[in-house]
Amino acid sequence: MIESVNVIGARGRVGGAVSARLAERGITLCADGAGLVLLCVPDRAIADVAATIEPGPWVAHVSGSTPLAALEPHVRRFSVHPLQTFTHDRGPEQLDGAWAAVTGETDEALAMATELAETLGLRPFPLGDDRRALYHAGAAIASNYVVTLRRAAGELLAGAGVPDEALDPLMRRVIDNGFQLTGPIERGDWETVERHRQAIVEHAPHLLAAYDELARLTAGNTVPLGSRA
Amino acid sequence: MIESVNVIGARGRVGGAVSARLAERGITLCADGAGLVLLCVPDRAIADVAATIEPGPWVAHVSGSTPLAALEPHVRRFSVHPLQTFTHDRGPEQLDGAWAAVTGETDEALAMATELAETLGLRPFPLGDDRRALYHAGAAIASNYVVTLRRAAGELLAGAGVPDEALDPLMRRVIDNGFQLTGPIERGDWETVERHRQAIVEHAPHLLAAYDELARLTAGNTVPLGSRA
Repeated sequence: MIESVNVIGARGRVGGAVSARLAERGITLCADGAGLVLLCVPDRAIADVAATIEPGPWVAHVSGSTPLAALEPHVRRFSVHPLQTFTHDRGPEQLDGAWAAVTGETDEALAMATELAETLGLRPFPLGDDRRALYHAGAAIASNYVVTLRRAAGELLAGAGVPDEALDPLMRRVIDNGFQLTGPIERGDWETVERHRQAIVEHAPHLLAAYDELARLTAGNTVPLGSRA
Repeated sequence: MIESVNVIGARGRVGGAVSARLAERGITLCADGAGLVLLCVPDRAIADVAATIEPGPWVAHVSGSTPLAALEPHVRRFSVHPLQTFTHDRGPEQLDGAWAAVTGETDEALAMATELAETLGLRPFPLGDDRRALYHAGAAIASNYVVTLRRAAGELLAGAGVPDEALDPLMRRVIDNGFQLTGPIERGDWETVERHRQAIVEHAPHLLAAYDELARLTAGNTVPLGSRA
């Protein structure tokens, strides 16, 4: 049972939310003698920080992409990766409703990881240590590239003289509607797709390759794109 | 002032929501003698349907990508495009909070379009008829390609043995946080990006080109991708 935690990196985006939630749950936060040392540091610092910790307590990290081996020399180790994006502007409520990947090499480690995730208010699922890259690539596509789509779409709307925040209710509804596909590709309306492409070529040619690749994926790779480009 | 409307295509996704909202607002819906004929038909049917309408009333469509010329021979014409995705599973409340592109060739036509948009509960902005393709390309990127990202990311998570619905709270929060970019590209962590690429090459190679194009856009086109692919 987790009673005391030493959160390293408690001023970071994730560490801040995690520390505040642990405090809310009555967990003792302390620098010395904690039963768990939880590394909320940048991925590339995990191994260095782990190496400075005297063996004894459980040691864990909150990274999605970093293998457990980065926690060497510790063997009582695990990871809990909240599948969420965090900001300094919000508090521990950021954890509510999010899922979390829990990884451990023993039943005891997995039980600890699951307990920590649930204490944080996260919905845990197990993730194999050798599946991290695939999992994390998916997480990055779903989060970071949504930002990229929003910027690209906003650029096109601005070029058309339209306020780009008009896109936000649309994007929310796509999620609310369970990601139902609508629009020209769903209708097989390739004339409209070609008009999009011509407009992109004229006004924002750096977006064409991404537009085309996503059109191919959307249509299932059978798209006759570029005939008029 | 709009007092009576003949909605053609009232059983479609958009037409259904529009008709219901007009009825809520006390507008008379009628097949004959309406002051406005509103075409809520598929884009490719607009010109054919418009040609069957006896000149006299205002004639309008709700398409984002179709020019006003498709409404020939009518000259009292305009368009209102709700920038939203619609489903048969919901009603007129789908219009709430959404923006709408209004297009007209005269002040009177623009005033009619604006009045219709506001009656529907939409927030109107003007769109030039010659800017439709650019605008609509942006709308398609922001909505349809979010579906594509979700599918691609879900495929990677499934490959990692992870429930793909775990992505949904993450994607919502990206929007709620105002599209702040986080993750490896924001941190300049190209080692993690390369691990993503290797995992994609091994498990879902059809996604690599889109991953790379979006990585380049995300980083602003300065990315040394592919050195290890």
